[in-house]
Amino acid sequence: MTTKINVGIIGAGRIGRVHAENLIYRVPEARVLAVSDVFLEAAQKCAADFNIPTAVKNHQAILDNPEIEAVIICSSTDTHAQFISEAAAAGKHIFCEKPIALDLKVIDAALAAVEQHGVKLQIGFNRRFDPNFKQARDMVAAGKIGAPHLVRITSRDPAPPPLDYVKVSGGIFLDMTIHDFDMARYLIGSEVTEIFAAGAVLVDPAIGQAGDVDTAVVTLRYANGAIGTIDNSRRAVYGYDQRVEVFGSEGVVVVANNTPHNAVYSNTEGVHSALPLYFFLERYTEAYVAEMKAFILAIAQDTAPPVTGLDGRIPVVMGQAAWKSYRENRPVKLSEIGL
Amino acid sequence: MTTKINVGIIGAGRIGRVHAENLIYRVPEARVLAVSDVFLEAAQKCAADFNIPTAVKNHQAILDNPEIEAVIICSSTDTHAQFISEAAAAGKHIFCEKPIALDLKVIDAALAAVEQHGVKLQIGFNRRFDPNFKQARDMVAAGKIGAPHLVRITSRDPAPPPLDYVKVSGGIFLDMTIHDFDMARYLIGSEVTEIFAAGAVLVDPAIGQAGDVDTAVVTLRYANGAIGTIDNSRRAVYGYDQRVEVFGSEGVVVVANNTPHNAVYSNTEGVHSALPLYFFLERYTEAYVAEMKAFILAIAQDTAPPVTGLDGRIPVVMGQAAWKSYRENRPVKLSEIGL
Amino acid sequence: MTTKINVGIIGAGRIGRVHAENLIYRVPEARVLAVSDVFLEAAQKCAADFNIPTAVKNHQAILDNPEIEAVIICSSTDTHAQFISEAAAAGKHIFCEKPIALDLKVIDAALAAVEQHGVKLQIGFNRRFDPNFKQARDMVAAGKIGAPHLVRITSRDPAPPPLDYVKVSGGIFLDMTIHDFDMARYLIGSEVTEIFAAGAVLVDPAIGQAGDVDTAVVTLRYANGAIGTIDNSRRAVYGYDQRVEVFGSEGVVVVANNTPHNAVYSNTEGVHSALPLYFFLERYTEAYVAEMKAFILAIAQDTAPPVTGLDGRIPVVMGQAAWKSYRENRPVKLSEIGL
Amino acid sequence: MTTKINVGIIGAGRIGRVHAENLIYRVPEARVLAVSDVFLEAAQKCAADFNIPTAVKNHQAILDNPEIEAVIICSSTDTHAQFISEAAAAGKHIFCEKPIALDLKVIDAALAAVEQHGVKLQIGFNRRFDPNFKQARDMVAAGKIGAPHLVRITSRDPAPPPLDYVKVSGGIFLDMTIHDFDMARYLIGSEVTEIFAAGAVLVDPAIGQAGDVDTAVVTLRYANGAIGTIDNSRRAVYGYDQRVEVFGSEGVVVVANNTPHNAVYSNTEGVHSALPLYFFLERYTEAYVAEMKAFILAIAQDTAPPVTGLDGRIPVVMGQAAWKSYRENRPVKLSEIGL
Repeated sequence: MTTKINVGIIGAGRIGRVHAENLIYRVPEARVLAVSDVFLEAAQKCAADFNIPTAVKNHQAILDNPEIEAVIICSSTDTHAQFISEAAAAGKHIFCEKPIALDLKVIDAALAAVEQHGVKLQIGFNRRFDPNFKQARDMVAAGKIGAPHLVRITSRDPAPPPLDYVKVSGGIFLDMTIHDFDMARYLIGSEVTEIFAAGAVLVDPAIGQAGDVDTAVVTLRYANGAIGTIDNSRRAVYGYDQRVEVFGSEGVVVVANNTPHNAVYSNTEGVHSALPLYFFLERYTEAYVAEMKAFILAIAQDTAPPVTGLDGRIPVVMGQAAWKSYRENRPVKLSEIGL
Repeated sequence: MTTKINVGIIGAGRIGRVHAENLIYRVPEARVLAVSDVFLEAAQKCAADFNIPTAVKNHQAILDNPEIEAVIICSSTDTHAQFISEAAAAGKHIFCEKPIALDLKVIDAALAAVEQHGVKLQIGFNRRFDPNFKQARDMVAAGKIGAPHLVRITSRDPAPPPLDYVKVSGGIFLDMTIHDFDMARYLIGSEVTEIFAAGAVLVDPAIGQAGDVDTAVVTLRYANGAIGTIDNSRRAVYGYDQRVEVFGSEGVVVVANNTPHNAVYSNTEGVHSALPLYFFLERYTEAYVAEMKAFILAIAQDTAPPVTGLDGRIPVVMGQAAWKSYRENRPVKLSEIGL
Repeated sequence: MTTKINVGIIGAGRIGRVHAENLIYRVPEARVLAVSDVFLEAAQKCAADFNIPTAVKNHQAILDNPEIEAVIICSSTDTHAQFISEAAAAGKHIFCEKPIALDLKVIDAALAAVEQHGVKLQIGFNRRFDPNFKQARDMVAAGKIGAPHLVRITSRDPAPPPLDYVKVSGGIFLDMTIHDFDMARYLIGSEVTEIFAAGAVLVDPAIGQAGDVDTAVVTLRYANGAIGTIDNSRRAVYGYDQRVEVFGSEGVVVVANNTPHNAVYSNTEGVHSALPLYFFLERYTEAYVAEMKAFILAIAQDTAPPVTGLDGRIPVVMGQAAWKSYRENRPVKLSEIGL
Repeated sequence: MTTKINVGIIGAGRIGRVHAENLIYRVPEARVLAVSDVFLEAAQKCAADFNIPTAVKNHQAILDNPEIEAVIICSSTDTHAQFISEAAAAGKHIFCEKPIALDLKVIDAALAAVEQHGVKLQIGFNRRFDPNFKQARDMVAAGKIGAPHLVRITSRDPAPPPLDYVKVSGGIFLDMTIHDFDMARYLIGSEVTEIFAAGAVLVDPAIGQAGDVDTAVVTLRYANGAIGTIDNSRRAVYGYDQRVEVFGSEGVVVVANNTPHNAVYSNTEGVHSALPLYFFLERYTEAYVAEMKAFILAIAQDTAPPVTGLDGRIPVVMGQAAWKSYRENRPVKLSEIGL
């Protein structure tokens, strides 16, 4: 590749810095020209740490820069849809963290802008790029398990997010299970049509007082007849638990957790091995790199990004269906929500 | 132990023969005096194979034998409740295969007879005696995982039963999931209050035509707030898949399948290890011995058997709730059924 | 099988009792008519516990009993060879615990008696009947790993034997490694030609004072060019460690330890699983049954027993070669010892 | 860190390119100013690929550059010692690939130059930086296994090197086992005093004709009494097999291979999982980064590098002892060689 893709990063928080570092050190096909953040100091620190030429407060400067071909939107969720629309209007290709928005109308407006201006949009469902999950999905797609019958997704965080986050995030089904909803679609390649969600407050009563649940089991009915189940907890004391299983007519594929090392220690008490990698930054280190590579490659080769705007929209529908199911204690069809 | 417990076996089919062999060769504290079967040849063959002194067609001869203290009821399901009542009236202690019956009134009559005559009754939920599941339950009971939050039970058969069996068995939730319902209670020591069952016919359309499903996911709400999920398939091509997981505030315990050997073979194609033990007779060999030992010990020491009549009744309620939930596509409280 | 093989047991110590119980409860094709022990009380207790009709002090009574077709020799090692000769002269088939003797001339005399009288002799190398090792050997024999290049045997006891035993046992290479020497031959089906043994006293100085070592690594050269290595310790604090690995031109097969259960527990400290089964009685429970079945079957079907007198002799040669190698700190050919 | 360490790379072959890429993309504390290679095109391609300002044919240009503080010597083995001496004389800190040389006098001259000029020298034993082995060693150092008794190292390559390489490499004990000799020292922190090496030509007769062996088992005696064993093969068809085990008075630590993913697939044939990562570039990706970080950090903080010149010398002594042992078929003390 002779020419590099020039990129601007909007939002220099934790995940913005991850993408900045990966683009700079691990994606030689990209060049980061600018970073913006409403907290200018954050943008400046990010620029200094990673040798980014320009740091600005207002993302408009990035959109106005004719050299920049693509933007990475890592700002707060409530700005995603607006920034997508603005970037599309500016002719920039867009990588946007999930979720696009919590309101389907808002999402639809953003997706319409993307379509109207003919730019590329990739949504940040990073787990699709994890080697374990990718292997499982590739085996399913290759027919190794035959027709899928059962899907199981375990997704448990090591610790709950701050209560302030829970209050604006849309709650567990929209801030946490949303990744699993995407995984459920990714693994099988069939759409979910109906959801039944059971939830409970078992980890921290304050989460319940904030209107959320911290423990959940979701049953999924797929269009192809398969049945899926997702179990979530806001707090697994042993660390980030990220496993999937797909069972079908010809076999099963099961994905285990990743660990920092493979040393197994035996003493008089038992056989002891390493806990899973602590949280998403450790577990999905390579996945974050791979999703950036894929985005830059899609631009360079003018191909469709691997996670589309529709892939960003449907899990929001699923999250809303899950909330409705939980509140009404009945299965809810996605068509009731707006799919 | 100086005196042996004299036992009669009612029903010399596959499971009757398993109990006969175990009692004779693995439970020195028992002595099998007689076996009955409506097919006299079956009783005679069983007697010849295992050196049982008496083989009869009619179980009444066993109940009339004053030397016999206990009976093992392994006849067809539709006779269980009647034989329990008759054996209780005859003053015999009773081990009965599951289910007691499919009709709760019939069950209740049998349990009333047991109570009236003061005999012991143990139900054949053999999985409770599996070392893996027992270890998981013991860890839960010892508080190792803290308060239970999530329970996962995977239970998949290697091949569907004959269609004739499916037609009279009560269907998947009463002939197969019933074991998992018992396991769900056993692992946690808290009762299930509500069930949501999703089912599908994905293995064999003939199973659907017989009014049954062959693939199912059941969500359980426990009285203590925990949420459970059971997934079933009538056919796992890789063999009998019997796993559980209990997740709680302080940890998780996960039980894997048993295999016939631990040899791991690597060649250019991959790393290969043994499939699970094929089906229940192989997987639960030791559990069948242990449940017999426990029954005989309960008689010898005059203690309560470890699986009671109520333990036999509740999973039938759960199975009926699951069917109602599946048919009405809504969560069903066990109190709607009769708990 | 219509007629049972009548058996007498010589020696009612720990292993004699294991064989008695297995023959009586797990090998229906055998009938135990008598047990002898120089401590009459031991024979009587064994007879009472397992319903053996006759208990005697002198094994001659067993040899004189015309009804008895086979004897199981479980007496002290120094009597093995003599009892083999006497039993052969009495026309009894013989199962004898290892080692036949520590002196090759004594062994050869016993084997000559067996040959002269045309009786069957099986040596108690029980590990050949372990499902894990049998699977490894079967894979090697089936050519799954191609030509064998490397063999690794790990064999570590949970605790040292009593010092009194060490003083008469022939030391580690003849009381412990001898099993591994047999395994080395069994796995590959090629003879060992040269041995280099390194030893150390690291577990207990008293073992060294008794003239033995407690830690050893033995290198084996096979006739077919392969190289083997055995590592031994008298004390693995985590339990009985019994693993093998065979590596060849087309792959590798690795055998892991067996555990009492498959429950895996994760908490904040790590992921914890069960220790290996504690010692040989737990680990080789099924192997002891299988070797008895094989012996009885060889008699009933008049076939060659699966572990021959020569299989009993060669590991003694290997043990002596190991001691010579250790003492002279040089590789020793088996032909120097007497193979 | 405000100032970067300026580095020159000598040798732009495969491993030189790995270090170049790592220094540039993964070690922000370093800056690569120049690369040299006797094949100028290789240096130029490396410079172009990784944006290195200067590419030269003669390494002298690097040594003459006053801005360069440190050199990474990745040229052919026969130049290592000379380049170390020259770089030391030029006042450069030195990272040098193993081995320093095959001749101890040559090594000693190079180490003398390093000492005389007071520069830092780190040898490229990359496996010390592998998270698995580091964890094992850290557990040993922390006393988790008590006193070490037994060490086992398995090290098998997926495919033999070219015959031309074998002819100049010093053979298996100096080009391959040398890594395991270092690992043997690293894991235990005690020196090896005596070596017994068994070797065979089982993979390819041409290797034997070149004067080398392709299969080996080495027994190590440590100063602290422990016994070690290394097994090597030039060709493991299932990939790069890199495992270690350290057994001691209080426990054991066992390190397994790394795999590209954790997906486990079961079908009617068995349970299948991923092969080990193919070879050293895949397996030790992170270790190569970590060793560079450690070298740069040692310069920046003026501390001793973690792998010293002596650490480079001793494994060569061990390799020579192994060859002598193999050729004379007897244990050889390292003191016979020159330690």
